[in-house]
Amino acid sequence: MSVNAYAAYEPKGGLKPFKYDSGDIGPHDVEIKITHCGICHSDIHLIDNDWGISAYPLVPGHEIIGSIVAAGSEVQGMKIGQRVGVGWQSGSCMRCRWCQCGQENLCNDSKPTCVGRHGGFADFMRTDSAFAFPIPDKMNSETAAPLLCAGITVYSPMKHYALKPAQKVGIIGIGGLGHIALQFARAMGCEVTAFSSSRSKEEEAKAFGAHHFVSSQEKKAMRASAGSLDFILSTVTAPLDWISFINILNKNGRLCFVGGTVGNLEFPAGMLVMGQKSVCGSVIGGRATINEMLDFAARHDIRAKTEALPLEGVNKAIEKIRKNEARYRMVLKN
Amino acid sequence: MSVNAYAAYEPKGGLKPFKYDSGDIGPHDVEIKITHCGICHSDIHLIDNDWGISAYPLVPGHEIIGSIVAAGSEVQGMKIGQRVGVGWQSGSCMRCRWCQCGQENLCNDSKPTCVGRHGGFADFMRTDSAFAFPIPDKMNSETAAPLLCAGITVYSPMKHYALKPAQKVGIIGIGGLGHIALQFARAMGCEVTAFSSSRSKEEEAKAFGAHHFVSSQEKKAMRASAGSLDFILSTVTAPLDWISFINILNKNGRLCFVGGTVGNLEFPAGMLVMGQKSVCGSVIGGRATINEMLDFAARHDIRAKTEALPLEGVNKAIEKIRKNEARYRMVLKN
Repeated sequence: MSVNAYAAYEPKGGLKPFKYDSGDIGPHDVEIKITHCGICHSDIHLIDNDWGISAYPLVPGHEIIGSIVAAGSEVQGMKIGQRVGVGWQSGSCMRCRWCQCGQENLCNDSKPTCVGRHGGFADFMRTDSAFAFPIPDKMNSETAAPLLCAGITVYSPMKHYALKPAQKVGIIGIGGLGHIALQFARAMGCEVTAFSSSRSKEEEAKAFGAHHFVSSQEKKAMRASAGSLDFILSTVTAPLDWISFINILNKNGRLCFVGGTVGNLEFPAGMLVMGQKSVCGSVIGGRATINEMLDFAARHDIRAKTEALPLEGVNKAIEKIRKNEARYRMVLKN
Repeated sequence: MSVNAYAAYEPKGGLKPFKYDSGDIGPHDVEIKITHCGICHSDIHLIDNDWGISAYPLVPGHEIIGSIVAAGSEVQGMKIGQRVGVGWQSGSCMRCRWCQCGQENLCNDSKPTCVGRHGGFADFMRTDSAFAFPIPDKMNSETAAPLLCAGITVYSPMKHYALKPAQKVGIIGIGGLGHIALQFARAMGCEVTAFSSSRSKEEEAKAFGAHHFVSSQEKKAMRASAGSLDFILSTVTAPLDWISFINILNKNGRLCFVGGTVGNLEFPAGMLVMGQKSVCGSVIGGRATINEMLDFAARHDIRAKTEALPLEGVNKAIEKIRKNEARYRMVLKN
């Protein structure tokens, strides 16, 4: 299959058209005709080789929705024409302890969609069919595409760390991840507080589901929140005053980091001991959790707020993200 | 009631005889004739006013076993002559969210046994009867006394953070807390690794239940343990190379701090994200957990390894602890 994609050819470079042949289809693979692909901040990290794992030409894109146009000989339970989504992960070993227990996201042999293979800034892509997830009928492809990475990244820790409906939740950072996290937390029945350095996001944060808004720049408001939250999810990459957030946790509370990392954490161990608090992390999610997340999002009409451009507009879309002007997720369309 | 105790009269001072009158018994209190009282490291911190909360004269002692000699008018379900134990906590508000859900250890109005009232280095002590725990008949008072603080301090995080029998557990520090933690983890069915800076403790650590022993000073052995443990409990107060211990956690693993704190923690947030790891703390335990712990310890014959001295030998006992020569818990006897 001849694929028309956009690729980075060097770190920090603009994307240019790139054609490749995807060769014979593997027995467990499906070929997807891409209709939509969200742009995640980690695509930018990959383009820039921030993590030292990029190989060029590099086709980013791992918030993919499209329809199956071909399936390998061993593929079962999927049909040609079916609408599916693909996220950060396109394969795993299926044999290790983590794959066995539905936590394929922790597999040491995880195959990222756009590291070592070509991603979704293209007209077609290929994945192990085990990582192509049926999209519920009622979902809109454009607003659902970002759920495949941003959505699962914020949903999985809520599930994994057993967030409960009666709890009080804080979401730090109202961006691509945070605006979806607010919706999930609200739909789970929680009391939700949005933390942002931009006061200008208050109104929208409340529209996404926040009951309260706290400017993380306002020390007085931060102090007034002490001991109030059971779970705080940080979706930012900027280093913040983490001690003040640990202080905002109630007893038994948990501060969870996701996404691109924020550098070093430093705080007194005694803050964890005296309040039985936890600081933790979470990384994407397993297959069962992705299916559950899609079902939950469909039921609660949870969708990314998107701005769509044609695939050819990829560089313009990336520029908007680099300037922190995306509100809240750029999606490329074919 | 006239009580004969030993008290510190100034920070870091030796203990001297101290008599006080405990006044009329409150309606919910019991008066306990003390037979045994363990010496916990936090008694030393209180004597030294390390936490800035000490008031002198200060009677330490919060690993108490004795028998009830008097009960207030409202006390129910306990009888004169009954053997009971008292730990760090002698009272709580019984009304807050935490008291309501059996986590009295988190009550903001917690009443520590020897802060603001007199502790167990004495012939008698008084406590809210709700914090006097029946000691299972088959238990030996001398070796059970340290369970009231050291025991619950290490048992509670295993319960609270849902340690599972098939998991692999590390215990850092083979001292007053650690030697009991090894026994609990072993009895829970776990594979247990002891970490100590003293190679000399290997044999005893294995006798307490460790399957493996790793010298935390040996970098090669530490590196070889990478990714191997689901839960690590740190019982030490010395700052260690915490990054190496986070590295020893398997995915989904948890590093938990208890007891006196170790100062600041500093590590990259990304270490938590990529492996879905947690760093957390735990502080003593609630009443239901204390009763459960005593029952579990009795069933599995878990006991502190003690060295007993008469109450009059309190300064000698404290000296041994200050020199790190206690193996593993000093207990004062009347």
